[in-house]
Amino acid sequence: MEEYKDIVHQKKGKVDVTPIATFYRNEVKQCIEKDSLKLKIVAFLTTNDQGALDYSKWTKLACNKDGIEFELRKVERVDLEDLILEANKDDSVHGIMVYYPVFGGMLDGYLQDVVTPEKDIEGLSTRNRFNLYHNIRYLDDKQTKKCVIPCTPLAIVKIIENLGIYDKSLPLGEHLKGKVITVVNRSEIVGRPLSAMLANDGALVHSIDINGTILFQKGKREGTIKMSETDVPKEESIQKCDILILGVPSPNYKVNSDLVKEGTIVINFAGCLNVEEDIQSKCILVPTIGKVTISMLERNLLRLYSHSFTSTLYTQQPSK
Amino acid sequence: MEEYKDIVHQKKGKVDVTPIATFYRNEVKQCIEKDSLKLKIVAFLTTNDQGALDYSKWTKLACNKDGIEFELRKVERVDLEDLILEANKDDSVHGIMVYYPVFGGMLDGYLQDVVTPEKDIEGLSTRNRFNLYHNIRYLDDKQTKKCVIPCTPLAIVKIIENLGIYDKSLPLGEHLKGKVITVVNRSEIVGRPLSAMLANDGALVHSIDINGTILFQKGKREGTIKMSETDVPKEESIQKCDILILGVPSPNYKVNSDLVKEGTIVINFAGCLNVEEDIQSKCILVPTIGKVTISMLERNLLRLYSHSFTSTLYTQQPSK
Repeated sequence: MEEYKDIVHQKKGKVDVTPIATFYRNEVKQCIEKDSLKLKIVAFLTTNDQGALDYSKWTKLACNKDGIEFELRKVERVDLEDLILEANKDDSVHGIMVYYPVFGGMLDGYLQDVVTPEKDIEGLSTRNRFNLYHNIRYLDDKQTKKCVIPCTPLAIVKIIENLGIYDKSLPLGEHLKGKVITVVNRSEIVGRPLSAMLANDGALVHSIDINGTILFQKGKREGTIKMSETDVPKEESIQKCDILILGVPSPNYKVNSDLVKEGTIVINFAGCLNVEEDIQSKCILVPTIGKVTISMLERNLLRLYSHSFTSTLYTQQPSK
Repeated sequence: MEEYKDIVHQKKGKVDVTPIATFYRNEVKQCIEKDSLKLKIVAFLTTNDQGALDYSKWTKLACNKDGIEFELRKVERVDLEDLILEANKDDSVHGIMVYYPVFGGMLDGYLQDVVTPEKDIEGLSTRNRFNLYHNIRYLDDKQTKKCVIPCTPLAIVKIIENLGIYDKSLPLGEHLKGKVITVVNRSEIVGRPLSAMLANDGALVHSIDINGTILFQKGKREGTIKMSETDVPKEESIQKCDILILGVPSPNYKVNSDLVKEGTIVINFAGCLNVEEDIQSKCILVPTIGKVTISMLERNLLRLYSHSFTSTLYTQQPSK
């Protein structure tokens, strides 16, 4: 990953993550070509949401370019569960994704678990998340089926890694030692798994949601996470952090630039920008991460498929 | 269940469900005495919520009277996951329950799945709910470990059954044929499983939540459910139903009595009454169901435990 090491010397300005996405997509592409793999993703869409439609187009473009078939299936939400179950059984389908919200709320959480963990390229099933929190690397006792990590948090960790923030001179699990990271979002699909992953790498994470802040740190046992309550006000968590990660799905939520200290790395994964644009005059700003997320979707597809073939890419555990 | 058949002739008035609860608790008690069982429930509480405290007291009272040990553990929410995992492994614990909300939202949904399905007496795990929707009766392929059904929906079905609404002269699966039932609540822990169970018994269910109405009916294959969209206004769903089931957690939500037709059975499972009190002058009103829910909790405990012993109560599948 030598090509990105110079970004760490950049103390401010907007960062385009395209080269990071390209790096991981090329890895996947080479692997697919080398082994002549025929892999197919099926994506279910139940609405006419333009954002989801656009995202599905970009995903299809990327996948097709990298040798992966991508089929968008527009379906009625009341039929979705049955159709997911069919895709679970269909040997020609290797990865399944769903554009949420479908019904909204906990029913969507249920649907995330209808996707079999073996084709869950988004990494949203409870099984894959539970395993992430408990440092369990395989879906099965025989250790033939690897777990995946939710796409968006994985993309953010890869971006941080490629910005040169990880101190690789420290032992594994301490690469982010001494770093304070504030994550404004504690959803089960991004904010919480992300906070756990960053804590697992040694950071002190302030996890903020509408109800308050919870701290995430490394637990006593390897791979476990310790959560603790805190009274630190949200503003202070934003002021004192080295990395600020924003994911509030509202254009009205904007962090005041004055609050953020110079040189902070600001990563925005909300559909809208959660910080004032002028922040880039004193900070590194990653305004969007979608391209890297798509590359992680491809990577997860390969990882899940790897249980049935041997590839050079996956003879070793990926670093994350 | 001959003792309740006269309630069906009652066309109005408040119904006290205590005798129904007593019937099921006595079944459990006899079974525990007969086999000298030593069963223990552990209940986790992370707040000082008075409602939860009261409910835990009533549950403890009932359990102790029926020969079941009940231990309330007050814990910090940040420690809850680890403590559930310990209880999962503790052979002296046979049933685990948690008073929600803990964090609120999807994180609570995650915690519901941390409780092992084998001790999930509340029936809240995705596994137990998925199996309910797909008519899968056992947790394992060898069919030694029975699934349970979420307590509250199960209690409501038992109340309806004991009110004499089920037409047992019809074939199994059609006992509610021709009945229209409206359920105002589509949560994953009560409203949706309940709607599926009632549809599975032949009813046409109008499932209402804040976003609109979905119809639930029997699917083509045995044990499956068909959901479909509808434009029927909420008021009409409430007007035309034979049974109205209310579970809106707000004292401000009150169905206007004028809207409900004479002779409707109104069952309220919200903590507050979702209908005007005067409804009992023309309808059957079941204002609270908590006692039956507790009896179902005991019943589920026994059902989950039944895989390791043989009891007369469970040599046959319970009717639901």
